[in-house]
Amino acid sequence: MESAILLVSCPDRKGIVREIAGFIADNGGNILHFDQHIDSQKGIFFARVEWDIKDFNIPREKIEPAFRPIAERFSMNYTLHFSDQLQRVAIFVSKQEHCFYDLMQRFQSGELRGEPVLVISNHEDMRPLSEFFGVPYYHIPKTKENKKSAEEKELKLLENHGIDVVILARYMQILSEDFVNRYRNRIINIHHSFLPAFPGAKPYHRAYERGVKIIGATSHYVTEVLDEGPIIEQDIIRVSHRDSLEDFIRKGKDIERIVLARAVKWHLERKVLVYENRTVVFD
Amino acid sequence: MESAILLVSCPDRKGIVREIAGFIADNGGNILHFDQHIDSQKGIFFARVEWDIKDFNIPREKIEPAFRPIAERFSMNYTLHFSDQLQRVAIFVSKQEHCFYDLMQRFQSGELRGEPVLVISNHEDMRPLSEFFGVPYYHIPKTKENKKSAEEKELKLLENHGIDVVILARYMQILSEDFVNRYRNRIINIHHSFLPAFPGAKPYHRAYERGVKIIGATSHYVTEVLDEGPIIEQDIIRVSHRDSLEDFIRKGKDIERIVLARAVKWHLERKVLVYENRTVVFD
Amino acid sequence: MESAILLVSCPDRKGIVREIAGFIADNGGNILHFDQHIDSQKGIFFARVEWDIKDFNIPREKIEPAFRPIAERFSMNYTLHFSDQLQRVAIFVSKQEHCFYDLMQRFQSGELRGEPVLVISNHEDMRPLSEFFGVPYYHIPKTKENKKSAEEKELKLLENHGIDVVILARYMQILSEDFVNRYRNRIINIHHSFLPAFPGAKPYHRAYERGVKIIGATSHYVTEVLDEGPIIEQDIIRVSHRDSLEDFIRKGKDIERIVLARAVKWHLERKVLVYENRTVVFD
Amino acid sequence: MESAILLVSCPDRKGIVREIAGFIADNGGNILHFDQHIDSQKGIFFARVEWDIKDFNIPREKIEPAFRPIAERFSMNYTLHFSDQLQRVAIFVSKQEHCFYDLMQRFQSGELRGEPVLVISNHEDMRPLSEFFGVPYYHIPKTKENKKSAEEKELKLLENHGIDVVILARYMQILSEDFVNRYRNRIINIHHSFLPAFPGAKPYHRAYERGVKIIGATSHYVTEVLDEGPIIEQDIIRVSHRDSLEDFIRKGKDIERIVLARAVKWHLERKVLVYENRTVVFD
Repeated sequence: MESAILLVSCPDRKGIVREIAGFIADNGGNILHFDQHIDSQKGIFFARVEWDIKDFNIPREKIEPAFRPIAERFSMNYTLHFSDQLQRVAIFVSKQEHCFYDLMQRFQSGELRGEPVLVISNHEDMRPLSEFFGVPYYHIPKTKENKKSAEEKELKLLENHGIDVVILARYMQILSEDFVNRYRNRIINIHHSFLPAFPGAKPYHRAYERGVKIIGATSHYVTEVLDEGPIIEQDIIRVSHRDSLEDFIRKGKDIERIVLARAVKWHLERKVLVYENRTVVFD
Repeated sequence: MESAILLVSCPDRKGIVREIAGFIADNGGNILHFDQHIDSQKGIFFARVEWDIKDFNIPREKIEPAFRPIAERFSMNYTLHFSDQLQRVAIFVSKQEHCFYDLMQRFQSGELRGEPVLVISNHEDMRPLSEFFGVPYYHIPKTKENKKSAEEKELKLLENHGIDVVILARYMQILSEDFVNRYRNRIINIHHSFLPAFPGAKPYHRAYERGVKIIGATSHYVTEVLDEGPIIEQDIIRVSHRDSLEDFIRKGKDIERIVLARAVKWHLERKVLVYENRTVVFD
Repeated sequence: MESAILLVSCPDRKGIVREIAGFIADNGGNILHFDQHIDSQKGIFFARVEWDIKDFNIPREKIEPAFRPIAERFSMNYTLHFSDQLQRVAIFVSKQEHCFYDLMQRFQSGELRGEPVLVISNHEDMRPLSEFFGVPYYHIPKTKENKKSAEEKELKLLENHGIDVVILARYMQILSEDFVNRYRNRIINIHHSFLPAFPGAKPYHRAYERGVKIIGATSHYVTEVLDEGPIIEQDIIRVSHRDSLEDFIRKGKDIERIVLARAVKWHLERKVLVYENRTVVFD
Repeated sequence: MESAILLVSCPDRKGIVREIAGFIADNGGNILHFDQHIDSQKGIFFARVEWDIKDFNIPREKIEPAFRPIAERFSMNYTLHFSDQLQRVAIFVSKQEHCFYDLMQRFQSGELRGEPVLVISNHEDMRPLSEFFGVPYYHIPKTKENKKSAEEKELKLLENHGIDVVILARYMQILSEDFVNRYRNRIINIHHSFLPAFPGAKPYHRAYERGVKIIGATSHYVTEVLDEGPIIEQDIIRVSHRDSLEDFIRKGKDIERIVLARAVKWHLERKVLVYENRTVVFD
């Protein structure tokens, strides 16, 4: 099914739903989903509206201009997407395989609707799997010294391939502020702790030392502040005194996989809105 | 805040959202929540719309008649409620205290927005607690022989006190079909298993015998078929071989409490729609 | 059933299990539970052994001296308890009722095996409920100025009533280091966050601001460092953008109740061992 | 580390722990894990004991005969294994890839300690993945007519390759009673429901129709009665009215993967004991 997806945020006031729904109905569209949310404390209106455009009176390329006057009247931030336009995805990976494997399988099976265009790694380890799935693999080693030039190579690859979204599948390098700014709210990371607990390095070691009874994983958009970007999804798993550090790490992998996959899925389906370092997820 | 709550279901077609939102906006209402759902397989549209009526142009008692033409045009089933009209609640209880106790505390603290008007029990055990909370307690014993006359007493009490909703807080008697029909989709039960597993008697015993690794609780509307009514909420807790039958029962109580409390809360806040033995819960 | 419970920790070496089990078997005891754990990284052995003493050859008061030579040979830290010796409990509470209510009901129903001897509060609010359950209530107001003298009153009460364990059921005052030292590993607190995330004040507010997708509660032994004592139990519940701060607080109450109740239960049943700011919980 | 693993079940009576621990200590072994459980209702003792055999006085092949007199004295059922003896695994798969893929990755990464010796399928679909991981793939089509001869081929393969355990990774064929008997408690299945709810075909469809709020997956040993074998592990995931049948199926895959992987891991590490159609899992 071909559908249009409108993501909107604007100051809350009377009549917004009517105007959006009216625009769609007046032009012959059938609403499939109308998800709305109001942050009543801050007075902000959010919506994700998806409608069937098979019999829509306005051709695709003219929908956005047609909607613009409404958007302007309500001072909307908005984006318009079409469900059959798959986002182009770059996956960054280091030596840890579990998230990468998991994502590849989900892309291949069609569960994740996006196009994995390329894989970038600072190591060679994941090349065979990447090639098994038919996705080009770029080995770009990174050291303290070459970080800037390596990032330039990476950015050029992303640009040349028209990448829409970057997934850090346990990529063990910190991206520069410049890199982050160019893909703001389009770089998805998985951190192996229940943020804001244990940001930064070796979270499982610290969780083990602290004697926690539950460990977690957090998927978030990357910002210039390490592990403090808007959280998209989190999940947890129980541990006990019987679990060694190795058990923490092993158990954690299962939730890292799932949390990252959910966040990526929602992002690809245009279900995530970011505001004030938080997310609205219309799942 | 005074608000109106409209619950709607109707055959899905173009323009429904626009009409509802238009009705509200045209009369000066500000939408607080617009939750919508489409069962695309069956082509049914559902919505729960809540709007601020402080500046609404139509007085309360005329809102329903004013909306009726729209409802008829779209063949809507609908109800209209106001958030400050608390539902009048009867709680049925036997000897088990945990759910009853829990509900009373939640009503008293204001977490559950409803008015517990009376308690009916086939035993005397819960009278002290009921009286501590200041709710009249009616002891109506039940035997095979007196079941019909006992139910008549109960129904008369419900009627005389204008009861809107009946909560079975581990009430160990089966209600007659006649009783159920008079309060269709307004009797909320908690069953101590993960339905449809272990319907009927002694679910924890059977779960223990079967060697399950997780037990559950299910809150549902009561229908004439035992434990087969529309499910409102379910939750689970892990068990292991270390847990005895007594542990199953004890652990289960925690989820019975929580699952029943959630279901009651959603019902009282008009967040539940029933169709074809299933529920839409706009939580 | 009368049983003896031995809690042991010592440097790990060969023969410990044999010696303990031998001591019990040689004297005609039947082992009910033998839970053992080795922290292989640190080389520490832990065990909780419970045995039926109905036909035990050694009378109760002589079991400990009889075991002492074994304990000394293996440099054991150990305690010996009897399952029918209920611990004497003091509950500290402020104005929040949910955990207090919940504990009282669990003590009354026999789910928590201990004797709630007294309730201490810096407010009057919980007196009616305390009296409903027949537990003496002491109102000891606390200000910055009187904190020292108030604590002296509290400590005297605890001493005079032979209190074994103190439960802080959302008690909103910080205990002095001196107080903590006198009841080391015997003061159980419930903190309304998933520690080490959000220690200190207003954790729900901060969780809301951070935009987390899961909130938690943590029960721990109180130490002189705020919210950094050994964790006994944690649990979580999902939240979303739809949840307001009030929803966070309300949802959190359900896990605060359950997490505190579990920690208290395990403590009362002598299932918790503390070492190096962590716990072994033989649940 | 080389270790011996003893799995024991026998009628409960005094002295069992002492005898087992004594056998190990007397011969210079150091106990790594001593997990014990008593079904007090049925009077059965269970244990899993693992000890370091580096300095053990008895050579491997003589441990079992040396232990036999103790076993006979207590009428024990027992098995003795060594942690470095990897079990030989056959994976049966049909067209669904998610569990198969997941298992292969876990075997390759070393998380699952076993040797995947061969893959058997009634379809060709999984051959490329199987070959990518270097595991021989046998395509044995099955129809109503050829079922008997197909199973004979399968059994011959299992025998020729010395297979210890069979994993049904969403294998969509029912094994004959004869097959099951030859690998009793050694065939692990994953069923895509929360058993005993929805045994048999199309559980997600039936869960969707029933309107449940949680779906589950169950891993169990296969017996001659469909989906009624001893349960090893279960887990669940929440669903809502927003989830279509396709969403049920997609969400379910995540728990199928995890539940099957956990069950296989425990089986391979000799942590599962079966009795009276139930399991003791020393996790």
